[in-house]
Amino acid sequence: GDIMEETGALIRKRRATISTGKCVPLKQVNGRSEVDESVNGRSDSGNIVTKRNVSDLPSTTSKERKKRINVPSDRQSCHRLQESLLSSASGYRNYRGVLNWCVVMLCLTTVFCFSRYGILVDPIQVVSLFIKDPYNMPAACLVIVSNVFIVAALYTERRLSVGCFSERVGLLVHSINLSVTLCFPVTIVLMVKSITPVGGASALGVYTVLFLKLYSYKDVNKWCREMSHAKARSLARSLSCSSIPRSRESGQDYQVSYPGNVTLRDLYYFVFAPTLCYELNFPRSPRIRMSFLLRRLFEMLFFTQLLVGLTQQWMIPIIQSSMKPLEDMDLPMMMERLLRLAVPNHLLWLIFFYWFFHSSLNFIAELLQFGDREFYRDWWNSETITYFWQNWNIPVHKWCLRHFYKPLLKSGVSKWLGQSAVFLASAFFHEYLVSVPLKMLRPWAFMGMMAQLPLAWFVARFLRGNYGNAAVWLSLIIGQPIAVLMYVHDYYVLHYREGEY
Amino acid sequence: GDIMEETGALIRKRRATISTGKCVPLKQVNGRSEVDESVNGRSDSGNIVTKRNVSDLPSTTSKERKKRINVPSDRQSCHRLQESLLSSASGYRNYRGVLNWCVVMLCLTTVFCFSRYGILVDPIQVVSLFIKDPYNMPAACLVIVSNVFIVAALYTERRLSVGCFSERVGLLVHSINLSVTLCFPVTIVLMVKSITPVGGASALGVYTVLFLKLYSYKDVNKWCREMSHAKARSLARSLSCSSIPRSRESGQDYQVSYPGNVTLRDLYYFVFAPTLCYELNFPRSPRIRMSFLLRRLFEMLFFTQLLVGLTQQWMIPIIQSSMKPLEDMDLPMMMERLLRLAVPNHLLWLIFFYWFFHSSLNFIAELLQFGDREFYRDWWNSETITYFWQNWNIPVHKWCLRHFYKPLLKSGVSKWLGQSAVFLASAFFHEYLVSVPLKMLRPWAFMGMMAQLPLAWFVARFLRGNYGNAAVWLSLIIGQPIAVLMYVHDYYVLHYREGEY
Repeated sequence: GDIMEETGALIRKRRATISTGKCVPLKQVNGRSEVDESVNGRSDSGNIVTKRNVSDLPSTTSKERKKRINVPSDRQSCHRLQESLLSSASGYRNYRGVLNWCVVMLCLTTVFCFSRYGILVDPIQVVSLFIKDPYNMPAACLVIVSNVFIVAALYTERRLSVGCFSERVGLLVHSINLSVTLCFPVTIVLMVKSITPVGGASALGVYTVLFLKLYSYKDVNKWCREMSHAKARSLARSLSCSSIPRSRESGQDYQVSYPGNVTLRDLYYFVFAPTLCYELNFPRSPRIRMSFLLRRLFEMLFFTQLLVGLTQQWMIPIIQSSMKPLEDMDLPMMMERLLRLAVPNHLLWLIFFYWFFHSSLNFIAELLQFGDREFYRDWWNSETITYFWQNWNIPVHKWCLRHFYKPLLKSGVSKWLGQSAVFLASAFFHEYLVSVPLKMLRPWAFMGMMAQLPLAWFVARFLRGNYGNAAVWLSLIIGQPIAVLMYVHDYYVLHYREGEY
Repeated sequence: GDIMEETGALIRKRRATISTGKCVPLKQVNGRSEVDESVNGRSDSGNIVTKRNVSDLPSTTSKERKKRINVPSDRQSCHRLQESLLSSASGYRNYRGVLNWCVVMLCLTTVFCFSRYGILVDPIQVVSLFIKDPYNMPAACLVIVSNVFIVAALYTERRLSVGCFSERVGLLVHSINLSVTLCFPVTIVLMVKSITPVGGASALGVYTVLFLKLYSYKDVNKWCREMSHAKARSLARSLSCSSIPRSRESGQDYQVSYPGNVTLRDLYYFVFAPTLCYELNFPRSPRIRMSFLLRRLFEMLFFTQLLVGLTQQWMIPIIQSSMKPLEDMDLPMMMERLLRLAVPNHLLWLIFFYWFFHSSLNFIAELLQFGDREFYRDWWNSETITYFWQNWNIPVHKWCLRHFYKPLLKSGVSKWLGQSAVFLASAFFHEYLVSVPLKMLRPWAFMGMMAQLPLAWFVARFLRGNYGNAAVWLSLIIGQPIAVLMYVHDYYVLHYREGEY
């Protein structure tokens, strides 16, 4: 009796494993229940062939199987109730090949253009975007000076860790350091005449990233001190190396605990690592894969070429030709130019996304043996605007969640207000990175970001599934060039029209 | 002891089920084993968010969970060892959004073109492709005459079912009927001057489909007779309605068994049904979904417009401009024109594929409540040429497998020879459908199909994964326009150059 009960329990347990595991569920198709093979988007092509070929033969008992050679009746039934794969009802979602198709088409177009027009990139023009005078590079100097703020943050943390600074003094020093990190480059960019807009934007980008990193550094070190003060040292150690099997597996991987991490080497690793969230013990990849590194390097070079070529040959002519309609506020012509600008602008954005978030960040991560390569998630499938913003830029999203949204929630702010605050902060930084280098304060980037809130509400409320996804794509394709045209128009009016009068 | 053994066997069986089932395997990432969530391409976006948000919090015991509000240390570790989604190592394959992107881009381009150039389709030109003289429509007459062959096949089967014809006589009559089905339209198309190439190709297409359907009809009925002669009537009934739960579920769904199916109504249902393989009891969908039907109808109309517009505005100008280089055998110019032709030709083929295999066949199937909508499989992911040919056209593939390849194997032919024979037959029909309407016998279509065999060997031998997939795409993009240019050139030389001299 006992044995029976025990084995019965064992079977029930296994059954539970089966049902909670990610097995293919029995799916209701047209009111009838049947195992839907095609739903499984994960199995590779080879598997599908095998499976399908097997299912072509209807299941026969062993008795019937013997007769198969004589009685060919098992070939009679060769249809079964099912939806086409492209119907959304089929639930099929494996379109890796479509991505490859896009790559093949892009390469063919590039080859065709190069064979027809030759190499179109003008390198001197590119360099002149960044610097006006090779003996006077203020943007580069600005980036070099940023080391001061890194060292200041480390100094403050050192003092805090040994107790020389109280928490209050530490917070004050950090706040001053962080606000100077944001304000100092602004004054330089606005004051120095020889800084170009592109050079200024790059320098400001570096400072913004540094600001976010140092903010995270300050927060995490504070949490570590809070933990030690709570006299939960044992807990702290087990949490700081969260995945215990890792340290168990590879004995040589030593785990750093709190005061040991406040070193120059540790901080500079974090500054160069492709993440904005500080952690005492980052997951590390076991070795540098040379072939991976070289492929990413090749992609970086190829896509840089493509980005510059497309901008010079496609974007700039359209932008120049849309100045006249924009000045005259000629609405039909403006719409036409906007649609013409939308396609190259969107392609540039997509190539930029791949170039930065896949090629470049993976290249840096591989060099530094940084293990977490989640720089983006599947935003291309996003069916709501919110999902897109949560998944296209994971380093920033992670930072916002960890150092802004969750602390806000903890301080009693409502969920909706917290989300709006994140969008507001994001809008501020977008404006900061565009207005300051162009040396003109216009609200377009800010408004573009804030317009996402009602848009997100609208899409989530009225559109579902593939229609929602199409709406996200449309907002990307149409929304961006509007903002671009606005800034370009204002910049043009400010700098070139003045000369005319 | 016996009970232990039995339950032990049961557990082993369950374990086998788990390991062969489609559960997510423990995946080796960078040498460490961990359950990879991102692999699961099937879960929809919403699910991923939930799962990810949960995984943001490292797993904590209930003791620690209580302390979470006071000790914020669970926020410390926010990275884990993982690959980027676009890296092939991640195994992620859900790119439904990329397909939507293609649709959005296509619609935007169409809207842009229409808003700029107006509606470009010339309907009179389209009609004139099919008929020269509205009072003399030989292609339409040819299609109407095809009913004779359907009735002849039914008559033969009736005679066979009651025993008036012996199997031998039946085979002879069927063979005559089938060969006349193939040869009769050829003589008409070649003899009647007023048939246009497009009209002729359509009529021949109808006759080819009819030939394949009647061949299948003859085979299946023969199998049914073989079964009844084997005195296995009870077995026959259980097999003819292969999915037993269906008949059990809905009592009103009666299942036809052999001699009852030889009716005019049954045969005409099969003739119009979107399949080439006859079956006594087709799976039926429970009702006609009006919204589905209307969406497919809209797609059919929209894509017809697009197909005609693209051909008239994009294809024909390029083809006309490539006649001169082709005549002079100017190789660099020919290459350039080929590349220029490749993109519109490929887009047309893709739109045609969707228009025919998804919209049109689903529309017909919905009207006829035909249940099996598998008209294509995931050929866009194919990593070998063979996989592409096995999956892009399922009705033909199913027919070849059931009525040509498997009988060949059974008669002792080797697997490789059987595959080559299928390609040979396919090449014959491609040639048949192109050469006869153009009234010129050129080997390009035949050679194009036969060239797939060495190409398939090459791709399978040297290319894997995404590279194999890219090779399949390239062969589609480059291969087709070569054959198109060949025929167009020869047709042009034959019909227009003659007039010059």
